[in-house]
Amino acid sequence: MTDQLTSYLESHAHDAQALLEQICRQPSVVAQNMGMAEMADMVEGLLSESGFQTRRLHVEGAPPAIFGELPGRSDYTILLYNHYDVQPAEPYDLWLSPPFEPTVRDGKLYARGSSDNKGEIAARLAAIRALRAVHGELPVTLHWIIEGEEEIGSPHFAALAEKYSALLKADGCLWEGSSFDAADRPEMTMGTRGLLYVQLDVEGTGIDTHSGAASILPSAAWRMVQALATLRAPEGQILIPGFYDAVLPPSEEQLAAIAGQSNEEAEMREAYHVDRFVDNLTGAALLERYSFAPTCNIAGLLSGYTGEGSKTVLPARAMAKIDFRLVPNQHPDDILAKLHAHLDAQGYSDIRITAFGKAEPVVTPMHDPFVRRIADIARDFSGKEPSVTPIAGGTLPLLGSLRRFVGVPGLCAPGNATYWGSGAHAPNEHIRLSDLERAVRFNCHMFMVPDWNR
Amino acid sequence: MTDQLTSYLESHAHDAQALLEQICRQPSVVAQNMGMAEMADMVEGLLSESGFQTRRLHVEGAPPAIFGELPGRSDYTILLYNHYDVQPAEPYDLWLSPPFEPTVRDGKLYARGSSDNKGEIAARLAAIRALRAVHGELPVTLHWIIEGEEEIGSPHFAALAEKYSALLKADGCLWEGSSFDAADRPEMTMGTRGLLYVQLDVEGTGIDTHSGAASILPSAAWRMVQALATLRAPEGQILIPGFYDAVLPPSEEQLAAIAGQSNEEAEMREAYHVDRFVDNLTGAALLERYSFAPTCNIAGLLSGYTGEGSKTVLPARAMAKIDFRLVPNQHPDDILAKLHAHLDAQGYSDIRITAFGKAEPVVTPMHDPFVRRIADIARDFSGKEPSVTPIAGGTLPLLGSLRRFVGVPGLCAPGNATYWGSGAHAPNEHIRLSDLERAVRFNCHMFMVPDWNR
Repeated sequence: MTDQLTSYLESHAHDAQALLEQICRQPSVVAQNMGMAEMADMVEGLLSESGFQTRRLHVEGAPPAIFGELPGRSDYTILLYNHYDVQPAEPYDLWLSPPFEPTVRDGKLYARGSSDNKGEIAARLAAIRALRAVHGELPVTLHWIIEGEEEIGSPHFAALAEKYSALLKADGCLWEGSSFDAADRPEMTMGTRGLLYVQLDVEGTGIDTHSGAASILPSAAWRMVQALATLRAPEGQILIPGFYDAVLPPSEEQLAAIAGQSNEEAEMREAYHVDRFVDNLTGAALLERYSFAPTCNIAGLLSGYTGEGSKTVLPARAMAKIDFRLVPNQHPDDILAKLHAHLDAQGYSDIRITAFGKAEPVVTPMHDPFVRRIADIARDFSGKEPSVTPIAGGTLPLLGSLRRFVGVPGLCAPGNATYWGSGAHAPNEHIRLSDLERAVRFNCHMFMVPDWNR
Repeated sequence: MTDQLTSYLESHAHDAQALLEQICRQPSVVAQNMGMAEMADMVEGLLSESGFQTRRLHVEGAPPAIFGELPGRSDYTILLYNHYDVQPAEPYDLWLSPPFEPTVRDGKLYARGSSDNKGEIAARLAAIRALRAVHGELPVTLHWIIEGEEEIGSPHFAALAEKYSALLKADGCLWEGSSFDAADRPEMTMGTRGLLYVQLDVEGTGIDTHSGAASILPSAAWRMVQALATLRAPEGQILIPGFYDAVLPPSEEQLAAIAGQSNEEAEMREAYHVDRFVDNLTGAALLERYSFAPTCNIAGLLSGYTGEGSKTVLPARAMAKIDFRLVPNQHPDDILAKLHAHLDAQGYSDIRITAFGKAEPVVTPMHDPFVRRIADIARDFSGKEPSVTPIAGGTLPLLGSLRRFVGVPGLCAPGNATYWGSGAHAPNEHIRLSDLERAVRFNCHMFMVPDWNR
């Protein structure tokens, strides 16, 4: 980092935080269609003010994706990916400060989206602005796409990637970023799990009924409970026939990568508020399960009366939301077909299945040249060996579409201001301001590397 | 019925409906503490205007019960029981007209509480007012207690019955009433099921968490589903060890009573919006299951995200509300102990059990003199043989307390304006106005019988 840049960053120490507060103050909950148009306007404005030539990428039924182009001294092109939408903030009553009023407590900025992933938008913007102010043109050409449907599974990103594949071509893609681990090692994530998100609905009686007749009436709630119980053993194994058939065992290279990760179990236990992990897993076994096991998670469950006190009702309907996290080479369409077949075979063909989101698992090989380049940069920045995650727990559903229609290699580099305890998707989501500051410096360091075309 | 009374009722044909609309317009949801004080005032005022000497019966922690005394020409005393509270009206969006704005459509009055049981309060009041206007003093002394906690299981009625047992002494008690069946036969109900209402709560992680970590974290939702699945077989049998131990098989007298009931299966299917009953039951087998089978019903189920669309969250908590309907000689304390023991034995001792309501099953013998007297009156009124239900599906939790502390024999006589399709406890609860009119006439007929002391 040059002295001029260091001095600029010191004198503009609050720029990234101010940007982040501005972005987080604007709600953008795609699942509830809250504030999306205003957020798209704000993002386009911020990119434009930062020197990007912007345009809106439209596909039928989706909020616009914002695309920005910033030509550099070389035509080596890095595609940046982010999303401007956030998860719903419910339950509001668990937030210590309102989710859309960014609040700093104890060196942390609390707001929905601060960690996932408005913090990275702010860090990338602040770095680019600093580099341009101090050094003018960047050594590398940046293309930046910021979509608005990531938190509902990017249902239109395939259409977008297909329609705009020429725009999205690049030498490498920096996905939504990772950060630094508890030992300050830069983290690199080589892929994400796939996703199948379904809602199950079932009806018993046609209307809610006095529960005094429960001995002779079908119960939607019991039917849902008993159907769900066929999906997963109490010990955790998923019981849908064929669910594990396509699962690739981890490679030697991947096992070595997770063996090289820092031990963050204490931080993880604290972040999740648990005393222990399932099956008392620790060490390599814990990381292996975390990295390579597909899941069947109940994300929501609803039937009947859920208010205070008692109501003696036999509910007419029951609903469950389930997300399956998939690993190579599982495919969401195949898992959905197997779920249908399983419920039919178990006698639950009256349960309606609605698929809300599908994504393929995607993993970039660790020997890809762009990946090796980023690893060098991260090592140089931190003086530490990067900690490599072969496949993350979460999902970036757009990656399957990027791979299919654009073909650009990518990874999560440590440009995001997040950590284990950031509460992504949960109440009191936050980032540490010191992480934000480091993310700005890392992005500056990365984007000013002169010889991308070597 | 005398000519003067008939003529009075004709010229005051809308009195009962006007009373009912007044009472239903006032919300009184005890579970949500909504409008209870206002409703108590209104009920006391209405009794007082009708000639009753009123007082409030107070026990710690309960809304006041309203007690009224109306001396008659004899000291033969009938205790009337009703409640002024109603069930919660949720879900509001399923109501075709607002639940607390009484609305007449197609000869039916829609409002929360219209069937259960403000309709009977209105019918009893209208009958008493008519009798007093036409004939002056009644031939019988009436004591009337109207409590405010029936819909949450009358948690303070035992304390009340113990404290005021002298006031409640009577020759017979008319519980919350029954009506007339589809063949216009008067219905008499000799008892009600017991109740155990519990809420189950469980936690997994300490906070809601990104579901990408689901492979290594405990899931509250799965734990609840799997614990619930141990309570009841998919075929309906309750699996808690010892649950059925105390169940008395129906007596010959009781089997004969249900064999004598009218066939209302078509009306029941229509009311419940079902094509068939569980196990395709019909006829005597259906009535026997309905009358004598205890139940384990899921009244509510909640975990995680239940809004529109998708949210990929691992919920920290899960909740279930369960009501058990009990038959002689099951006891709620015994069932609660067995539920605890079962969950412990299955490894679910982390699930917290909160008991909201308990009631014993109570059945009055059909050969009781007061019961036989009411049967004669009902037969005389209608010209038809009463249809006798040995034990109802629903619960009047106060009955155990009345039996224990007061000892008065009782039954549900056909003084209520309800029917199969009335939607008690459900959206669009209503009564037929023709039923209301008949309930007024039946109450007049019953209360003017001259020779109660014979």
